[in-house]
Amino acid sequence: MIGGSLDAFIGSVHRMAAALDGTIELVCGAFSSNAARSIQTGEALHLPKERIYASYEEMIVQEAQLPADVRMQFVSIVTPNHLHAQPALLALKHGFHVLCEKPLAFSVAEAEQLGIQVKETGLLFGLTHTYTAYPMVKEARDLIAKGKLGTIRKIIVEYPQGWLSAPIESDGQKQAGWRTDPAQAGLSCCVGDIGTHAENIAEYITGLKITELSADVSSVVAGRKLDDDANILLRFDNGAKGVLIASQIANGEENELKIRVYGEHAGLEWLQSEPNTLIVKQNDQPTQLRRAGANHSYLSEHARLHCRIPAGHPEGYIEAMANIYRNFSKAVHSFEDQITHNPLLDYPTIEDGIRGMKFIETVIISGKENATWKQL
Amino acid sequence: MIGGSLDAFIGSVHRMAAALDGTIELVCGAFSSNAARSIQTGEALHLPKERIYASYEEMIVQEAQLPADVRMQFVSIVTPNHLHAQPALLALKHGFHVLCEKPLAFSVAEAEQLGIQVKETGLLFGLTHTYTAYPMVKEARDLIAKGKLGTIRKIIVEYPQGWLSAPIESDGQKQAGWRTDPAQAGLSCCVGDIGTHAENIAEYITGLKITELSADVSSVVAGRKLDDDANILLRFDNGAKGVLIASQIANGEENELKIRVYGEHAGLEWLQSEPNTLIVKQNDQPTQLRRAGANHSYLSEHARLHCRIPAGHPEGYIEAMANIYRNFSKAVHSFEDQITHNPLLDYPTIEDGIRGMKFIETVIISGKENATWKQL
Amino acid sequence: MIGGSLDAFIGSVHRMAAALDGTIELVCGAFSSNAARSIQTGEALHLPKERIYASYEEMIVQEAQLPADVRMQFVSIVTPNHLHAQPALLALKHGFHVLCEKPLAFSVAEAEQLGIQVKETGLLFGLTHTYTAYPMVKEARDLIAKGKLGTIRKIIVEYPQGWLSAPIESDGQKQAGWRTDPAQAGLSCCVGDIGTHAENIAEYITGLKITELSADVSSVVAGRKLDDDANILLRFDNGAKGVLIASQIANGEENELKIRVYGEHAGLEWLQSEPNTLIVKQNDQPTQLRRAGANHSYLSEHARLHCRIPAGHPEGYIEAMANIYRNFSKAVHSFEDQITHNPLLDYPTIEDGIRGMKFIETVIISGKENATWKQL
Amino acid sequence: MIGGSLDAFIGSVHRMAAALDGTIELVCGAFSSNAARSIQTGEALHLPKERIYASYEEMIVQEAQLPADVRMQFVSIVTPNHLHAQPALLALKHGFHVLCEKPLAFSVAEAEQLGIQVKETGLLFGLTHTYTAYPMVKEARDLIAKGKLGTIRKIIVEYPQGWLSAPIESDGQKQAGWRTDPAQAGLSCCVGDIGTHAENIAEYITGLKITELSADVSSVVAGRKLDDDANILLRFDNGAKGVLIASQIANGEENELKIRVYGEHAGLEWLQSEPNTLIVKQNDQPTQLRRAGANHSYLSEHARLHCRIPAGHPEGYIEAMANIYRNFSKAVHSFEDQITHNPLLDYPTIEDGIRGMKFIETVIISGKENATWKQL
Repeated sequence: MIGGSLDAFIGSVHRMAAALDGTIELVCGAFSSNAARSIQTGEALHLPKERIYASYEEMIVQEAQLPADVRMQFVSIVTPNHLHAQPALLALKHGFHVLCEKPLAFSVAEAEQLGIQVKETGLLFGLTHTYTAYPMVKEARDLIAKGKLGTIRKIIVEYPQGWLSAPIESDGQKQAGWRTDPAQAGLSCCVGDIGTHAENIAEYITGLKITELSADVSSVVAGRKLDDDANILLRFDNGAKGVLIASQIANGEENELKIRVYGEHAGLEWLQSEPNTLIVKQNDQPTQLRRAGANHSYLSEHARLHCRIPAGHPEGYIEAMANIYRNFSKAVHSFEDQITHNPLLDYPTIEDGIRGMKFIETVIISGKENATWKQL
Repeated sequence: MIGGSLDAFIGSVHRMAAALDGTIELVCGAFSSNAARSIQTGEALHLPKERIYASYEEMIVQEAQLPADVRMQFVSIVTPNHLHAQPALLALKHGFHVLCEKPLAFSVAEAEQLGIQVKETGLLFGLTHTYTAYPMVKEARDLIAKGKLGTIRKIIVEYPQGWLSAPIESDGQKQAGWRTDPAQAGLSCCVGDIGTHAENIAEYITGLKITELSADVSSVVAGRKLDDDANILLRFDNGAKGVLIASQIANGEENELKIRVYGEHAGLEWLQSEPNTLIVKQNDQPTQLRRAGANHSYLSEHARLHCRIPAGHPEGYIEAMANIYRNFSKAVHSFEDQITHNPLLDYPTIEDGIRGMKFIETVIISGKENATWKQL
Repeated sequence: MIGGSLDAFIGSVHRMAAALDGTIELVCGAFSSNAARSIQTGEALHLPKERIYASYEEMIVQEAQLPADVRMQFVSIVTPNHLHAQPALLALKHGFHVLCEKPLAFSVAEAEQLGIQVKETGLLFGLTHTYTAYPMVKEARDLIAKGKLGTIRKIIVEYPQGWLSAPIESDGQKQAGWRTDPAQAGLSCCVGDIGTHAENIAEYITGLKITELSADVSSVVAGRKLDDDANILLRFDNGAKGVLIASQIANGEENELKIRVYGEHAGLEWLQSEPNTLIVKQNDQPTQLRRAGANHSYLSEHARLHCRIPAGHPEGYIEAMANIYRNFSKAVHSFEDQITHNPLLDYPTIEDGIRGMKFIETVIISGKENATWKQL
Repeated sequence: MIGGSLDAFIGSVHRMAAALDGTIELVCGAFSSNAARSIQTGEALHLPKERIYASYEEMIVQEAQLPADVRMQFVSIVTPNHLHAQPALLALKHGFHVLCEKPLAFSVAEAEQLGIQVKETGLLFGLTHTYTAYPMVKEARDLIAKGKLGTIRKIIVEYPQGWLSAPIESDGQKQAGWRTDPAQAGLSCCVGDIGTHAENIAEYITGLKITELSADVSSVVAGRKLDDDANILLRFDNGAKGVLIASQIANGEENELKIRVYGEHAGLEWLQSEPNTLIVKQNDQPTQLRRAGANHSYLSEHARLHCRIPAGHPEGYIEAMANIYRNFSKAVHSFEDQITHNPLLDYPTIEDGIRGMKFIETVIISGKENATWKQL
């Protein structure tokens, strides 16, 4: 693991997600650019001293020299945005598969460079767009792919949060600090941190691509250096239209990622904070609530493969991220064993990552030009 | 009553709403441009024959000649859009107050002409933007006016319906027929029919005005002559931004008007299909559910004045419209008695109507110009 | 109307319900045992002076002498429990149909006397068990009657309210005053006021009869003379078992009447405070939300006949009571015209009333004997 | 771990829960009474061969002989009910702390024997009543302990499931098989499997004890050997009354454990399938939704200590069980280090287990005597 020292939020979530299914073991780490903190973290995690590294460079180089059955099998990168690409490139260069936090990189250029490297090495690259790993998101994708909704006409995707309603980055709140700092976060705070999840889930569920967008982007809180709110008009490659709303100043909202898709024949709705229910609506038909559960035979195989326990025992965010870790590690095993990986055990890829970076950049440019339409 | 023959949807709703509180009596009507149907309707409603008229002109002229304690006290207009302004103008000219269905008129020009006439006659003019008459909408307006949310920063208002997902106007569905016919509906179907409700409630609750908008307007169903879907970016006069989504092709949605308002200190959410709950959210505070009920002393006086029964006995759409009838008829009494009308017994006015028409026109123009920003 | 002076809650609800559909006119009333208050109420309701009566006896006798096309067509009784039977008996004796508030009477003996009188006169008798008049309750009954749930196995019906959590009857709260006074309410407060609604809806929806019960009945608030809480085990005539919970000390609950019925093949759930949704559940099938709406062709005819407006425009408690008034007045017309009344336009009858009284008495007796099983 | 071979449901959930926080390592196991299956399971879990045992006796005896820093620190027992007590007794005898699935034992006698053994050895004993380990259950307990609800008056706890609506035990469904088999499950199926969870959560949240109960117990499905449904009247040691409903034939219900508690000043409600929300209700006050989240400073310390991630990232059932594993393992460390264990890191104990067994027995006896009141 690169990044994720004890005081980081997302690092411990990754570790829980990786541990959940009992098939992945944390074997080494460079948990901080501060060597002492890296060591302190590694010790707290009961790692042997020789596998706690002072820097990611050291870790990658030294692990690569270990015997194949000892060295790490893939790298997980959980650093802030500006520290995604360099470690990923180095890991790939030394033959390691990479699982990386989103957004993929600091800029489109970095992202594309990574894309080339992945292609050239032929190694696996995964991205933790966690929300698409929920079982009922798989179910939604499956229903649309099977034509249950007919031609898709309209997509409303929103991601309201309220936690940045006040300038808490000035008070030393660490999560807010790096996300609102252009040097660490890149072009964007809100669009990069959460808007890109909304973009990713909209394209994932529908199988469509955004072709054009018009974005009204704001820094609502005085003195904030990056955006904290965006309202975006979308157009998709099949002619469907949509809206994407992302906000970190929606006071009182926790993490309400929600998507609604309307087709010629039916509509569907999914809300991340109640992730085990998928609502399917149809004119003049009773509304259906489809529910996650390993025992629900009416669900698609795709959905069931991402449930661990019977319906009514809620699975949550950590389980969703664990689905990515499980799928990616299975893909690594398939790669090593040179067997075909089950395509239903999918995970976000380098292409999702590059697309996400282009989306962020396009939104920010449209925003600066007063919401002019821009091609994506 | 003008319009509202037996086979019209909205006419009977108006009659139920007017009857509910026992203070308004239907005394005459010109229920259809078809004289026979008007008579048939009037008879079914137990009106005396001499008060059933063959045309609105006849009704207005003849009623005006009746003694003051016999003739109608105000006119209710429930015809399609193209038949709002002429009867309203004639009624005003003959000294009758007018309560009119929305949108106010067929065009901005007509609306402004009506505005002048209202001003000149000094008579009362009400508009049945029914949704703003729910008690919890009053509560929302009151909370914001009192500063509970702080400066308003973001407004998301949406009105998805699914009933026009197929070209049912071609199958003789009457409601769909006139709404999608430019000769009867005017410039717009979706924006005029429901978008304007969304605009009205957003401005009513927040006390803000939309100053600028960028609208992506669509006729999704092939062959439809007017719009059936719109995604609109909004900017308000205090700098707040927003989104307005209106759709009649959101398959499976019934009538899901919903508004969310986020301020510096808190946010709120109200959904028309569960109208008796107002959700108030605040970062790091428990979410509050404020509930309609004549017995709830924690509600504002404004809200309580619009509840009839104790909490837990749901009041609905007809009660909301009845609030407008009750308030308007009380205003008429106050007018006649030359006493001050209680401002908490409010109702949408001619200004709301003119503004609604400008909104519709501006949206349609922006839509035709690929969502260019337009001033409102 | 008998009872329902201006300061009574339920009287005005009855008047709104009766007025809603425009087919019933309030023509006379004895609104209070206090003649002055009766006159004051009648005047406020714009009744002609000669039709405002000082007592119900006067009203019944004098109205009976008016010409058939002038006199009232039926009597509505909205007094406290101890004043139901006598006016009803007198009205029947003078040839008037009766619509009466629940519970039917002060005691089982009174109720049975009324039953005999109804039988002997052959006149119509309705009871305002309002909750069974919601469209989705009709839908539930219809689904079960059609066998959709299979054999019914378990019924959970509950009616929690919180408004009597404190001894507000001591503070002069009028609604609490008579309901907790044995001289006006009879044997029971909680079971008579709300428990009987729960019993009625359980038997109405399932078509089953309670045969036996064991009731743990309490007066939770110190000094209260009648019960304010009851937990009851139920057994039904087909072998099904159930639970009935009624409480007026469930602090914070408004009026949460809820019923769940489980059969061999499926289950259903309906909640009065969200009355326009009926939830149908089935093992290993998506849950269905069936929604009220005059336009929903998937609903039973029984349900649709009790909807006024399209889905998504919520109808509430007043509309439910208006369904009883509408159905009862249509039955009166059918009676007078000697034509068959549509059985789908049903309303609670004298049998429901007698059964309700027996239920109340049985529960109270079981309660006094430490929840011994009692036949019903 | 004892029990939990690859084809068992609950074993893998325990392993995920134990692994989640990265502080517990599975070091050995006797996963099945079938030695081959035990070995197969252990290998799949990557255990060294010498730590995979053919029987629990072998495991306990041999592990006890390993050096202190190598041998297992505590035993987790996840077998069916009839195989709880013997392994637990043996483990205690050999000095191992024990974490055991509920219900504690096969009979009250066995349970009490275990209780004596725990007392005599002074070792730690935990029970996986998972539902009381959710953060919002801790919050509920904390609110009541602090007097926020005032004196508790009424408790409604229910646990409806539908999965045993048909006689699936006859079709070889393994989970149904042992639970409906008196030789493996003991006196009860429904009450032992889920009713005891309801009893435990009711006593845990309120701090009260059930003193008396009257239970209507049924075997609804023809041919079933044990109960699948129970409706129970409850009385508590402070005079509060209650209802406990447990069912496995509530067709269409997944796992809807729900508790409502009403006090003199307020009420609360919690539903396991939406575990991250605690509803607090109060007459004439807005309803409060308290939400789980490590970042919510308004929550009690007790609740926050059981959240891993910020609000809006749902935690579920596995996280709840992981809370028990985490707390128990911390208690084991405190025990070994002879330091005081933080009482907020609580877990169900041997006393809960003995009480649960008495509850099951008392319910079954009351049921056999037609719901006679029995002391608990």
